[in-house]
Amino acid sequence: MTNEREPLVYIYGEMVPASEAHIAIYDLAVVLGATVTDMTRTIGHQPFRLDDHIARFYRSAKYARIPPTASPEETKARTLELVEHNTSLIQPEQDLGIIFFMSPGVSPAYAGPGFTGKTGSTFCTHTFPLPFQSWVELFEKGAHVVTPPTRHLPPQCLDQKIKNRSRLHWWIADQEAKLVDPKAITLLLDLDGNVTECSGSNFFIVKDETMIFPSPRNILRGISQVTAMELGAELGIPVVERDIQSYDVIHADEAFLSSTPYCLAPVTQFNGLEVGSGKPGPMFRRLMEAWSQRVGKDLIEQVMTVEL
Amino acid sequence: MTNEREPLVYIYGEMVPASEAHIAIYDLAVVLGATVTDMTRTIGHQPFRLDDHIARFYRSAKYARIPPTASPEETKARTLELVEHNTSLIQPEQDLGIIFFMSPGVSPAYAGPGFTGKTGSTFCTHTFPLPFQSWVELFEKGAHVVTPPTRHLPPQCLDQKIKNRSRLHWWIADQEAKLVDPKAITLLLDLDGNVTECSGSNFFIVKDETMIFPSPRNILRGISQVTAMELGAELGIPVVERDIQSYDVIHADEAFLSSTPYCLAPVTQFNGLEVGSGKPGPMFRRLMEAWSQRVGKDLIEQVMTVEL
Amino acid sequence: MTNEREPLVYIYGEMVPASEAHIAIYDLAVVLGATVTDMTRTIGHQPFRLDDHIARFYRSAKYARIPPTASPEETKARTLELVEHNTSLIQPEQDLGIIFFMSPGVSPAYAGPGFTGKTGSTFCTHTFPLPFQSWVELFEKGAHVVTPPTRHLPPQCLDQKIKNRSRLHWWIADQEAKLVDPKAITLLLDLDGNVTECSGSNFFIVKDETMIFPSPRNILRGISQVTAMELGAELGIPVVERDIQSYDVIHADEAFLSSTPYCLAPVTQFNGLEVGSGKPGPMFRRLMEAWSQRVGKDLIEQVMTVEL
Amino acid sequence: MTNEREPLVYIYGEMVPASEAHIAIYDLAVVLGATVTDMTRTIGHQPFRLDDHIARFYRSAKYARIPPTASPEETKARTLELVEHNTSLIQPEQDLGIIFFMSPGVSPAYAGPGFTGKTGSTFCTHTFPLPFQSWVELFEKGAHVVTPPTRHLPPQCLDQKIKNRSRLHWWIADQEAKLVDPKAITLLLDLDGNVTECSGSNFFIVKDETMIFPSPRNILRGISQVTAMELGAELGIPVVERDIQSYDVIHADEAFLSSTPYCLAPVTQFNGLEVGSGKPGPMFRRLMEAWSQRVGKDLIEQVMTVEL
Amino acid sequence: MTNEREPLVYIYGEMVPASEAHIAIYDLAVVLGATVTDMTRTIGHQPFRLDDHIARFYRSAKYARIPPTASPEETKARTLELVEHNTSLIQPEQDLGIIFFMSPGVSPAYAGPGFTGKTGSTFCTHTFPLPFQSWVELFEKGAHVVTPPTRHLPPQCLDQKIKNRSRLHWWIADQEAKLVDPKAITLLLDLDGNVTECSGSNFFIVKDETMIFPSPRNILRGISQVTAMELGAELGIPVVERDIQSYDVIHADEAFLSSTPYCLAPVTQFNGLEVGSGKPGPMFRRLMEAWSQRVGKDLIEQVMTVEL
Amino acid sequence: MTNEREPLVYIYGEMVPASEAHIAIYDLAVVLGATVTDMTRTIGHQPFRLDDHIARFYRSAKYARIPPTASPEETKARTLELVEHNTSLIQPEQDLGIIFFMSPGVSPAYAGPGFTGKTGSTFCTHTFPLPFQSWVELFEKGAHVVTPPTRHLPPQCLDQKIKNRSRLHWWIADQEAKLVDPKAITLLLDLDGNVTECSGSNFFIVKDETMIFPSPRNILRGISQVTAMELGAELGIPVVERDIQSYDVIHADEAFLSSTPYCLAPVTQFNGLEVGSGKPGPMFRRLMEAWSQRVGKDLIEQVMTVEL
Repeated sequence: MTNEREPLVYIYGEMVPASEAHIAIYDLAVVLGATVTDMTRTIGHQPFRLDDHIARFYRSAKYARIPPTASPEETKARTLELVEHNTSLIQPEQDLGIIFFMSPGVSPAYAGPGFTGKTGSTFCTHTFPLPFQSWVELFEKGAHVVTPPTRHLPPQCLDQKIKNRSRLHWWIADQEAKLVDPKAITLLLDLDGNVTECSGSNFFIVKDETMIFPSPRNILRGISQVTAMELGAELGIPVVERDIQSYDVIHADEAFLSSTPYCLAPVTQFNGLEVGSGKPGPMFRRLMEAWSQRVGKDLIEQVMTVEL
Repeated sequence: MTNEREPLVYIYGEMVPASEAHIAIYDLAVVLGATVTDMTRTIGHQPFRLDDHIARFYRSAKYARIPPTASPEETKARTLELVEHNTSLIQPEQDLGIIFFMSPGVSPAYAGPGFTGKTGSTFCTHTFPLPFQSWVELFEKGAHVVTPPTRHLPPQCLDQKIKNRSRLHWWIADQEAKLVDPKAITLLLDLDGNVTECSGSNFFIVKDETMIFPSPRNILRGISQVTAMELGAELGIPVVERDIQSYDVIHADEAFLSSTPYCLAPVTQFNGLEVGSGKPGPMFRRLMEAWSQRVGKDLIEQVMTVEL
Repeated sequence: MTNEREPLVYIYGEMVPASEAHIAIYDLAVVLGATVTDMTRTIGHQPFRLDDHIARFYRSAKYARIPPTASPEETKARTLELVEHNTSLIQPEQDLGIIFFMSPGVSPAYAGPGFTGKTGSTFCTHTFPLPFQSWVELFEKGAHVVTPPTRHLPPQCLDQKIKNRSRLHWWIADQEAKLVDPKAITLLLDLDGNVTECSGSNFFIVKDETMIFPSPRNILRGISQVTAMELGAELGIPVVERDIQSYDVIHADEAFLSSTPYCLAPVTQFNGLEVGSGKPGPMFRRLMEAWSQRVGKDLIEQVMTVEL
Repeated sequence: MTNEREPLVYIYGEMVPASEAHIAIYDLAVVLGATVTDMTRTIGHQPFRLDDHIARFYRSAKYARIPPTASPEETKARTLELVEHNTSLIQPEQDLGIIFFMSPGVSPAYAGPGFTGKTGSTFCTHTFPLPFQSWVELFEKGAHVVTPPTRHLPPQCLDQKIKNRSRLHWWIADQEAKLVDPKAITLLLDLDGNVTECSGSNFFIVKDETMIFPSPRNILRGISQVTAMELGAELGIPVVERDIQSYDVIHADEAFLSSTPYCLAPVTQFNGLEVGSGKPGPMFRRLMEAWSQRVGKDLIEQVMTVEL
Repeated sequence: MTNEREPLVYIYGEMVPASEAHIAIYDLAVVLGATVTDMTRTIGHQPFRLDDHIARFYRSAKYARIPPTASPEETKARTLELVEHNTSLIQPEQDLGIIFFMSPGVSPAYAGPGFTGKTGSTFCTHTFPLPFQSWVELFEKGAHVVTPPTRHLPPQCLDQKIKNRSRLHWWIADQEAKLVDPKAITLLLDLDGNVTECSGSNFFIVKDETMIFPSPRNILRGISQVTAMELGAELGIPVVERDIQSYDVIHADEAFLSSTPYCLAPVTQFNGLEVGSGKPGPMFRRLMEAWSQRVGKDLIEQVMTVEL
Repeated sequence: MTNEREPLVYIYGEMVPASEAHIAIYDLAVVLGATVTDMTRTIGHQPFRLDDHIARFYRSAKYARIPPTASPEETKARTLELVEHNTSLIQPEQDLGIIFFMSPGVSPAYAGPGFTGKTGSTFCTHTFPLPFQSWVELFEKGAHVVTPPTRHLPPQCLDQKIKNRSRLHWWIADQEAKLVDPKAITLLLDLDGNVTECSGSNFFIVKDETMIFPSPRNILRGISQVTAMELGAELGIPVVERDIQSYDVIHADEAFLSSTPYCLAPVTQFNGLEVGSGKPGPMFRRLMEAWSQRVGKDLIEQVMTVEL
């Protein structure tokens, strides 16, 4: 019997209560981490750029050679249903994160001949309430970004332009970064020492009134990053993509995380050194204001005023 | 109600029927592929080098900074119980594969505040009947090994000396290799073009009566590989580890896969070229004979005579 | 005695019948592959961008430190004579490929003291009828482009911006690619996994109405590629050069080969995956139309209507 | 009409006078440098390790996917005939170099439909009198070895363990090295800065009474090098293969070139710095003595006393 | 007692005569080369872009984690004093080079417990008369630029965007380049074979009326280079930054050194090959004229007419 | 006037009191970090392996193309004098560190025409009392070794087999490592992620009773490391050199620093993880005992009982 207050999860073609949403230990998601994923959020209870996220999700699946079990249109329809239901369970001022993932399904060898569970690709959509409370300090003080010894995967091994879940190296890198600062956000360098991306966000800097993004070689083509670029263009701020290294971060005027859940966050420390003034700067406020205007919601206020 | 003929799975500290063995979609095994694993098998219903496999499993966990929930000794005890039970369900001439895996457990952010499932590291042991039938052709004709364009991960990204499940690049590489031959076994080159390992096995060659293994830089330190080395040493065959490239495979006298489930298999084709005579060779028979003697079981006969 | 219907070849400063056009086995062209080359074609019996091709040919020679035996002007004059003669031997609707090559001439050590053949740099111009028939399927169905395990040479070993004939790695890569599809066109990745060029053509993609060419680091600066860029600019299509990887090809709207003989061809498959719709697309037609207009010849019709 | 004093060349299955030994300009040897090769010499008019050289030649062909037109046994028989004839044309104290090469034959596209020349793989064996005179200074003063900016090809581009003729980078590197010293012998570093091989020889050093050879990753497995290793073993000198860098050469006690034509030569200068005493050292004499004894001919005297 | 004609040096917070300007052998400048530096010059006795140079000096210090002992403002004030005094000692037509350097000061371990010298960061500003005479030939004939085998440091080892004094590899590379030409200017390639910078200057080329600068990944962001870019922009010359290789230099129309002391110099030879016409070209004159106009001093005349 | 209790320094061919031992700010040691160095210590007031250290010092100078101003024999004689004098100033139970360094002397351009100081190579020998007190904790608890994001220089940039002072990257790496632990000892990975050496010591591990040293590609060939190897050989412990990665350190039984000043120290933590038992182990005691016996001095006791 399920709790009526429990969110639903869309999995294997059905809506099930969250507490019943699980997958077989034989699933290749578990066995190989052979999973592509995507994530968006609601803003004011409306999914943000849902079509873009679903399109990227299907691009990841094609690249990973995982056959989808439903069309993008069906996925969108089910997502809207799911969001509508799960939104009814949260506070009006809250919003949801929305996650998709897909794997090729169970490994026949591991499942064995008697296996009676689901076969075919595993496809799941689920949501979670955005943890606004945990971002208050991030918005007020900014993040301390740390580059651990672990390096990011090169594209000829596994192209990070697809959003995937073979991310054990991120888990390890996060533990390494926390040796420097328990609140550190991990930024990986690539094999050539270029800045790539953070464990849950893209990264960019502002220098001399220009927004500079890392070369798109081996980072997720983040939709929040694209949004930031679009806002920059609207505000008349030059936007460039090029290889950047630690030097550029240390001498940036401001630095940023862009990420679906919180949109944008300021970076104020890098490997123990202050970035810019060491405090969230004017470009952070300018971009967040523009973002808030675009989506019709004060994104900073929403976080700062939440009560849990 | 469970089927009495169903194998058990040891998960979250309990023995449960296989059909009830699943993990939450919020588990970091699913979310990040943040999973270490190991695998052994029974030979004549006795686990093969169980202590070695458990020791390697814990080494992988330490490297991956995943805290185990039980000691190696407890893991061994539970494994022996599990194997005893599950062996009772298979035919006398069959044997079991035995799998361990461990993840850091659920992501609190994804699980959300209302999550009531298991917390702490996820720890699981399960078994599956070895698919002898599928190895008949492998033993008779040998494998066609193919190197796809995808390259293996370098150790400074994720050290492949740990047995882990962030393996989406293997899934993709397997699909690429199957473009050449649907039965191809995938062998990955590293970023420098050196031969590394196959998707489910180690790889080595024999040239001029010497067993040559790839440098141990970024391959699993396979226990079957170690066994092959030990048998070579016992038979007076020189054993060396060094960087090898495609050239060395093409001009090997024989080439091999070593793997827990089938121990050893001959490689007779490489990227469409014959290796050696193009047929399983004398060293294959010699090593398998020695292996069979060591474990008290004719490993080739077991596969060849199975009826399913 | 020569056949009057035989084409001429310009070699060692003379026009000779094709069947007498050969070089000593001691020539460094044979001994070292120390040869630079270039190729153009006639369109409607007029050499296409002949000055550009000769200029590039001399740039290659300077880089390779091979001293030319004639000035660019003389080369042009001889080429026009040769083309005029050889064109008289083909059908009116046919056209010629025109090839130049130059090597430092014979190795004195190999030739030995009694050698009485030609000394000084070896310089040759020859032609061949364009094989229109073999392009019909290419234009109708598009190419299947495959990336084999072999990687392209880096510029600090041998800069591929010069058109040269030390190309054994291309021969091998072509055989590897044909394991996937006997009609495959080989596309080499570089050591970093970036897309470079094909064995007989440049390669580019179109995405979101932008023509994207691989970075010019280590690819031939193709004159057909330059023509494609110019046409793009004339048509108001943005043209960029940047590092691209397999991901970008898989998710391109269209992809292309550009090459002197056939100018432009559509790519419709990449490593077994469809590119775009899997069929020649609108940009192919648009660019070919512009190209045809520029040269005053319907380049597709010419191929499609040829009878051999 | 041929000169009776002219050496013969074995090409396309026939013995022809050297002045008639040529190949079509359409041959892939010329068009692509798609040629594998090998070389041995006579010592006292007997081919040196002929079987080993032919075996390596066929290994190169297999790797390069060029189908041979004759068996190794036939090649050996024809070679012996050829050598017997050509030896009759030289002075008794002279010896011959013996060269094999093989290409996949003419390019049908370039040859055109009217081509009437040889098809199938091109296979050739020829000889030349060894240029003893040019080695006198090499033996007396030793070589000046120079590392130019050009780097050697990595094995994943074209494995240098096969003896091939796509060697334009060697031609360029030789010109670069001659900027330092017109008599320089070129030694290429690989992409990691390791010492590889010279343009016409292998390279090794002696340090603390140990012979140290570069790692066999991407150098020709020279038969003279193998001979040097065997002689070292016979003399009780430790022999190791490992990565060496310029530092190791600068601080070697002695350094060497090993090559089929002259067997062994001392290196006495490296990038303008003296190696060891700056003169041919005791190990050079010791190894050459052993080599001379093995082949029954004083290899230094033969060179030093030649009159031309 | 000091010579009144002796220039002063600002060190450890004091003005001292040059002959007394020295640092302890225990200073980390000596012990580790742990020194950041900067350099500008006077033009007509006024420091050129002094604020920019001081700002870069402090950026280098921050990156190198060396704590400055004075603010940029104080540094500027002391520098102006120093320049005023030292200018009084030179001829009116002469100008000064101005150098800053900073190290973390003495190593306590090496200095030992009895050390009584200066502690804290070592900070020094000094000047030297610009050696105009030595540039006459450079301006008239142009430089011969040579790429030695030594490669430039990659940014993940030590980012060359900071001006630092751990430059032993430059010393060695300079000796190597002089093997080719005693007057050679050394240009280092990076690990990928890209052109970087010269031992005392930045490097750029002009091709088809475009100024092309190496990618700013791992070169000093030269202030003279920035000036050259600015002048180019003012003159309507397109300015781009991208990876360039030796090929691009060999085929440039003109090539240049930009450097604080002499501003700009023409490059007319590269590894023994002529660049462009082999003589200083029109773009050199055009840029130098614009530069002279900007600073109100004919920079070429100043060098050419100096008498020493 | 000098203090009689002041140690002497040998510099520019003279013995001077330490407080007068300084070098010009124009010295290339300061200007370029163009300095080679070496260090040994006394054990019981006798220099340890002085000949070996002087020989390595001269090897470094040859590689760095810095001309020495004195022969090794003279250097030894002066060193013995210096040590005798300076030893007379320390306590009987103390010992000295002995340092050599050499640079090419002043930069004429920077020194300017009026420079009256020393010219020619700068050559200096000095000593310092070994800081025993600072090693007590190191011996008792072992070191925490940390790998920062900075990578070690590759040999083709600057070969670390020479002991040199262009070490700014070490200074920066040390600051980065201290972010993890203020007492951290810095261990650099190379560009491939292999373990190299620590800022003041070599590094090795013991696993399964074998001493494993990093490949000698790009680390100082430490004389203490050689001593450790010799002692291992004497004790019958297998000694190997091979590429090792972080995984190998994490799973070592013990790990070690070897360094001239303290000979050997245990490593008990690596990037926050325990190595072995997390305490100094039996191999540390065994090796130090053997070392003490060899030099006739209890090396641990000497450190533990010192009073300062």
